[in-house]
Amino acid sequence: MPRNDSPDTMPSSSSKYFVEPRYYTFAHPPRELILKSGEKLGPITLAYETYGEPDAQKSNAILIFHALTGDAHAAGWHKGDKKPGWWDTMIGPGKAFDTNRYFVICANVIGGCKGSTGPASINPATGRPWGLGFPVVTIEDMVVAIKHLIDHLGIERLFCCAGGSMGGLLALKWSVLYPESSRSFILIACNYRHTAQQIALHEVARQAIMSDPDWQGGDYYGKTIPARGMAVSRMIGHITYMSEASMEEKFGRKLIKKEKLGYDFSHDFEVESYLNYRGTSFVQRFDANSYLYLSKALDYFDLSEEGNLVDMFQGVRGSFLIVSFSSDWLYPPYQSKQLVRALKANDIDVSSIEIQTSYGHDAFLVEVDGQSRLIRNFLRKIERE
Amino acid sequence: MPRNDSPDTMPSSSSKYFVEPRYYTFAHPPRELILKSGEKLGPITLAYETYGEPDAQKSNAILIFHALTGDAHAAGWHKGDKKPGWWDTMIGPGKAFDTNRYFVICANVIGGCKGSTGPASINPATGRPWGLGFPVVTIEDMVVAIKHLIDHLGIERLFCCAGGSMGGLLALKWSVLYPESSRSFILIACNYRHTAQQIALHEVARQAIMSDPDWQGGDYYGKTIPARGMAVSRMIGHITYMSEASMEEKFGRKLIKKEKLGYDFSHDFEVESYLNYRGTSFVQRFDANSYLYLSKALDYFDLSEEGNLVDMFQGVRGSFLIVSFSSDWLYPPYQSKQLVRALKANDIDVSSIEIQTSYGHDAFLVEVDGQSRLIRNFLRKIERE
Repeated sequence: MPRNDSPDTMPSSSSKYFVEPRYYTFAHPPRELILKSGEKLGPITLAYETYGEPDAQKSNAILIFHALTGDAHAAGWHKGDKKPGWWDTMIGPGKAFDTNRYFVICANVIGGCKGSTGPASINPATGRPWGLGFPVVTIEDMVVAIKHLIDHLGIERLFCCAGGSMGGLLALKWSVLYPESSRSFILIACNYRHTAQQIALHEVARQAIMSDPDWQGGDYYGKTIPARGMAVSRMIGHITYMSEASMEEKFGRKLIKKEKLGYDFSHDFEVESYLNYRGTSFVQRFDANSYLYLSKALDYFDLSEEGNLVDMFQGVRGSFLIVSFSSDWLYPPYQSKQLVRALKANDIDVSSIEIQTSYGHDAFLVEVDGQSRLIRNFLRKIERE
Repeated sequence: MPRNDSPDTMPSSSSKYFVEPRYYTFAHPPRELILKSGEKLGPITLAYETYGEPDAQKSNAILIFHALTGDAHAAGWHKGDKKPGWWDTMIGPGKAFDTNRYFVICANVIGGCKGSTGPASINPATGRPWGLGFPVVTIEDMVVAIKHLIDHLGIERLFCCAGGSMGGLLALKWSVLYPESSRSFILIACNYRHTAQQIALHEVARQAIMSDPDWQGGDYYGKTIPARGMAVSRMIGHITYMSEASMEEKFGRKLIKKEKLGYDFSHDFEVESYLNYRGTSFVQRFDANSYLYLSKALDYFDLSEEGNLVDMFQGVRGSFLIVSFSSDWLYPPYQSKQLVRALKANDIDVSSIEIQTSYGHDAFLVEVDGQSRLIRNFLRKIERE
């Protein structure tokens, strides 16, 4: 009876859903992690948030992974904030990840700068921020750390792991590392390994930061931050997150409050001031070293590094939903199709779709309706299994 | 009899074709130009080179326009150099622009740094380099300056104007400004106006340069050059000149002389060291301020700024060959098609082709065989008319 479903498909949009960040510090052994590089990292704290309530068997938990510059604040509102969490359009009562049904969890990755242990954290050995003394972490290390949190929360098996962009790589890695620990996986706008172009774009962003004299070899905490390099790196990022078509639709050649061209090196075009605004505002909210560490982790990501991709999925369980976006040139749809083929070659249950959109890579944040329908139906199907 | 053609279709590759740069300083009125901005610029010197010989009527001259970081040295060898001019594969005896038949000319644009008047030139009013005191020049201004050179050389009507990338924009602007002055036009990998994404990519490159403390508001001559900012801006450029596929073919995830990942912030991947090498070597051969001026001129370029594109081509004469490359994402083929449609709407003779290639925008420099056949046939057709 479809009508019975209606109460929890109605978003309670009239009231803000307030949340508070939580923290989990690895308390009992292992207090530290052996990283993929062989180095040890500890102590480790993870910032995380939860939305909705676990059922009696804790069988309704959905783990959301964030993207490069995301954080644990995926949904709801922090008191005093002007906007909600980064995927609030998708997580909440009646939304795609329906908090009336599911217990949703999101944790900041290690190496980040949003409450989890990263290069801006205090190195207990020195009493000063780690800076570049922080060991290089990988996507695998991030997943392993978050698995400790899920164990701590007493969740034996997740209902779903989901993420877009870097979050998709994390969910994918989870499916290989812990195949029995989740019933399903939603991978959005991601791939099985970083390509030369993706590495190249990150390398330029890293060079922009590291060539800023204020970067000081990563030892800038409490001093001047490498704001100029950070802004340039973020501008590059923004171009890759949009598509050529969406930039043209949004900006074209529109001038900034000008009747005509300025014939100087101030900004003439809206797209110039937009990018500069995004670059400058990013500096205030993200740590430059974290950008280096997370981009490096992405570039290192290669699920096939130890062999053939198809073989890597042997032993993988659960159902997959794989979503790509037609105009995404950072993680183009053909890369999702590579994933789909390798999973199907292992007789794994995969639904995949390429959403037609002009929003480019950003679509995973803004194509709410299209994604919501797919995700809602996919999760209900898993429920029925 | 095709055989009769064979002597001049055989490249004389065994011997180097030596050339020397020439200079033309506007000698008689106008010694200065009124620029599109309304500002005056003078005195003006243009560096140029010629290949082949003019016929008695000077009716066989082909004007080649260079790309953003190109120069007048399009073909042949300078004594002591390790490589020939930037389009030597296309210009020479028996080549596409056959110097046994044609008198080929290439001039450095104003605003550049390869012998023509630009921001690194001495401002006669101060006795010091212009720096940012140099007026902002446009594609139109560059064309007007080169028209003075062509007049000075006594050429009333060119046989052809040709160029790729920025060179294509210059040839296109020439066709509108001086419709009677060339029998034909070859426009490669270009468009009729810069798009938001193209402006955005240039703006990031400019910000990378201008945020380098050594840039010093453009007043760095005789001091430390803004090498770090220049390198970053060039790295961005290189990514846009290649395609995702060509980067993957050339580099993939190949490591630099390493058995495994370094787990630090040195370079792991060949694509990283390649980009850094290209960035660093660029610093030695190009002036940072010229990069600002030429990128600004490109961003300002909009053939439709004064009205409808189709109307802009009213009065345009001659035959057009328009070439685009399937994997060029900087000047995608659809942009060439916009040009083709607008020209055809004016009943202008246009041949157009999209060459299938993975080389991206760089294809105009490296797809020699495909372009040579097209250009040779096109020029012979014009000869027969």
